[in-house]
Amino acid sequence: MISNRFLGDLIPLENDRKGLGNTMVLDRLAPIDWEILPDLASFISVVKIGWTLPLLLKRSTLVDRISRYRKSGVSVSPGGTLLEMAVNKGRADKALESIRDAGFDTVELSEGVIDVPPYIKKGIVDFAHSNGMRLNIEVGKKNPRNQLSLDETIQRVSESLDFGPDFVIIEGREAGRSVEIFDDLGDIKWDWVNRIIEEYPRNRIMFEAPIEKQQIELVIRLGSSVNLGNVSFNSVAALETQRRGLRGDTFGVVDNTVKVSGPPSNKFVYYIVANHGPIDQASMMDLTGMNRKTVQNALTELLENGLIKAATDRKDLRKRVYSINSGLQ
Amino acid sequence: MISNRFLGDLIPLENDRKGLGNTMVLDRLAPIDWEILPDLASFISVVKIGWTLPLLLKRSTLVDRISRYRKSGVSVSPGGTLLEMAVNKGRADKALESIRDAGFDTVELSEGVIDVPPYIKKGIVDFAHSNGMRLNIEVGKKNPRNQLSLDETIQRVSESLDFGPDFVIIEGREAGRSVEIFDDLGDIKWDWVNRIIEEYPRNRIMFEAPIEKQQIELVIRLGSSVNLGNVSFNSVAALETQRRGLRGDTFGVVDNTVKVSGPPSNKFVYYIVANHGPIDQASMMDLTGMNRKTVQNALTELLENGLIKAATDRKDLRKRVYSINSGLQ
Amino acid sequence: MISNRFLGDLIPLENDRKGLGNTMVLDRLAPIDWEILPDLASFISVVKIGWTLPLLLKRSTLVDRISRYRKSGVSVSPGGTLLEMAVNKGRADKALESIRDAGFDTVELSEGVIDVPPYIKKGIVDFAHSNGMRLNIEVGKKNPRNQLSLDETIQRVSESLDFGPDFVIIEGREAGRSVEIFDDLGDIKWDWVNRIIEEYPRNRIMFEAPIEKQQIELVIRLGSSVNLGNVSFNSVAALETQRRGLRGDTFGVVDNTVKVSGPPSNKFVYYIVANHGPIDQASMMDLTGMNRKTVQNALTELLENGLIKAATDRKDLRKRVYSINSGLQ
Repeated sequence: MISNRFLGDLIPLENDRKGLGNTMVLDRLAPIDWEILPDLASFISVVKIGWTLPLLLKRSTLVDRISRYRKSGVSVSPGGTLLEMAVNKGRADKALESIRDAGFDTVELSEGVIDVPPYIKKGIVDFAHSNGMRLNIEVGKKNPRNQLSLDETIQRVSESLDFGPDFVIIEGREAGRSVEIFDDLGDIKWDWVNRIIEEYPRNRIMFEAPIEKQQIELVIRLGSSVNLGNVSFNSVAALETQRRGLRGDTFGVVDNTVKVSGPPSNKFVYYIVANHGPIDQASMMDLTGMNRKTVQNALTELLENGLIKAATDRKDLRKRVYSINSGLQ
Repeated sequence: MISNRFLGDLIPLENDRKGLGNTMVLDRLAPIDWEILPDLASFISVVKIGWTLPLLLKRSTLVDRISRYRKSGVSVSPGGTLLEMAVNKGRADKALESIRDAGFDTVELSEGVIDVPPYIKKGIVDFAHSNGMRLNIEVGKKNPRNQLSLDETIQRVSESLDFGPDFVIIEGREAGRSVEIFDDLGDIKWDWVNRIIEEYPRNRIMFEAPIEKQQIELVIRLGSSVNLGNVSFNSVAALETQRRGLRGDTFGVVDNTVKVSGPPSNKFVYYIVANHGPIDQASMMDLTGMNRKTVQNALTELLENGLIKAATDRKDLRKRVYSINSGLQ
Repeated sequence: MISNRFLGDLIPLENDRKGLGNTMVLDRLAPIDWEILPDLASFISVVKIGWTLPLLLKRSTLVDRISRYRKSGVSVSPGGTLLEMAVNKGRADKALESIRDAGFDTVELSEGVIDVPPYIKKGIVDFAHSNGMRLNIEVGKKNPRNQLSLDETIQRVSESLDFGPDFVIIEGREAGRSVEIFDDLGDIKWDWVNRIIEEYPRNRIMFEAPIEKQQIELVIRLGSSVNLGNVSFNSVAALETQRRGLRGDTFGVVDNTVKVSGPPSNKFVYYIVANHGPIDQASMMDLTGMNRKTVQNALTELLENGLIKAATDRKDLRKRVYSINSGLQ
């Protein structure tokens, strides 16, 4: 297989994607390059046809679209909102059958707009399992004015994991702003991210991150194994090169040239210093959401390994600030 | 027809689009998914092949593209700038014939770059009518440094309506910034919007709003009946779910769960309170461009219906501030 | 040929593109409208299949894609990062052969991630020349935290020109932010641009400018002859209308209606006054990166020609501020 890829003899791609995270694509009915899909299919875990968009299509058009994906080995899921609407009308059972019959092989259970009663959740989970369908559960509310707190998010992730889904997906919407881990500018709230991945097995969590900048930062910070969702089809190839260290952002930058040893917190602190330095310890705690001890330990190790250096803040002589030790290349 | 759509038996879409506004698509020669077009065609009033782009195509390529749209029942218009250039060269008559012969069934009359003399305007209008073509008239200047005032805009809308067009389109350009109803950041100047829709029948006015965030806000604020233009083909399906309350932003948020009765101003004030509260009355007047009496009446009704609540501003005890009464779900 | 274009008899396009700059397209494996490509092909100098993206494709898929471009007469290049990776593995020779054999007719030599030893550079240049391939050399580092200074950029442009490439490309990445001529917000650092085009023949330099706003500003400022790269396929037609003065931004704005005579600095100062006026001389020097004498001379000529006017700054009576003399239309 490897030898089929261009330059596969010189720069082989590992076909098994060992250690590389999952990518969920958001299909919003934009054009797809079906000729390239087979080559990219192995990089895609599932395509989600967004929110209630399937309702706009003739059944035959939808069935064709799903079928084209699945012929390339790509799983397809409807958006969670579709099922929420059916639940709201008391017709979840009938909707699930239609979803299965249209060729979807994955179900997404969400509570983005409504709350779903526990017995209905169980019914949806049972339906997926007994029909051999994959199951993802999404956590988060769609309304920016009615968001879950971090504690509520953590609790719902926990409850969702009990249902044994493939992934628990953290809501990011299409805009990647003002929901869950994203602030109103689309910047990542790292304290939220850290808390979530500290509490749960990272390979079961998927962050929706529609903006390429968000994807790049999450891969740099959490590593290539991070699961990302709501990626547009046109970003799949770019993200895959990112995960594989085949791009300027990762090739030769942090991951490949500078070896940051120790726990992930070391790598995170190094990243923060590289991108925000010179920076003092208190600011690092703010930015990372990590406590003093963790930041302190990381700084000590990075200093010992010569990766960063400390200096006195010229504006406040009582403060020490940190920056990277040299050019990266 | 309804039964052909996916899940049409459970969640039927009304095929007649009663009460739903018109959508004008801007085609800038990006790829179109022609297989999906027939399903979405009924959501599109007209496709505009932007500004002078048709000049770049071989006539046969252009004729094919127009023909594919029209086979799905979609009207097609050239951008107004094309006709402005012809007017500028004194060749409007010849250009109109070529436009008609290429298969366009709609003409757009604009003064985005030049001013068009009244007798030429009349000639264009007469040509459209006598050839059974639809006619749209655009108001607004393209140059951000040479914009019409609100009063001038109002006056030109008025003059344009006298020609009996299908729509008077308010210029938004491709960027949705620094022209007419949009400020330099692309935020909506609501006082402009309010003034325009107060003075004229709303179903005759179309706002160009290229950014999805702008489309969402205009639908939430003015309702599903608002006419929107310069929508990219890839946003048509998303916008239609928005108009139909099939998306997180409208499903279960303002439109469907909370019933705001009374005039549109009530709904607007509720929206402002929900999105900007706690907020005082003076700020609401600023944001909405509505006068004290209208805002006051809306607040009174919303308070009586228990949809919002009032409190004393902690920073200024003489002020009362308003916020929504409870979680929306 | 001209007569084939729509309205070619009324508004003829000069087919030879005399005086119009080159456009390099960045292909990131997004869908291409292959039916429209032949009409737009003459506007495209080269398509670059970005960074290491070719590695993700089966060789046969890549060969097909290249072949479709070349059948329309469009040159195709791999991204420079691909060759950098091969250099890094000591396999540049073998990679170059595979690149040539896949149908690429252009090579890009870059040092975005690594530094390439001079003898390897020479080897790459020689390979291109002896195989009849075109050669572009890119200057700039990809890492925002490890950028070249302006002086270093100038020096590397100089060294690159000595190899006799078709173009020296100034790195802009995909985001158009935080590298070379772009600041962290994607705004253009005009002092960098000015310095680069003052020192070298403008037709040998190409600026990567992925954002349409950047393209528009560079065309307005430097004229239609500026070479631009990393343009998305979907922006090619828009950019071409821009270059040809067929769009609101240039048609009737600066280029066509107002004739600014004299050296380019006059046109630049006029543009700054039109877009930032009323503005004083010191601010103009900041914005343009031009020295006092050049700005002063431009102001004098523009005042004499009646294109701008001077007034006393109301906030500081010692200052004179400049604005354009009248409406542009």
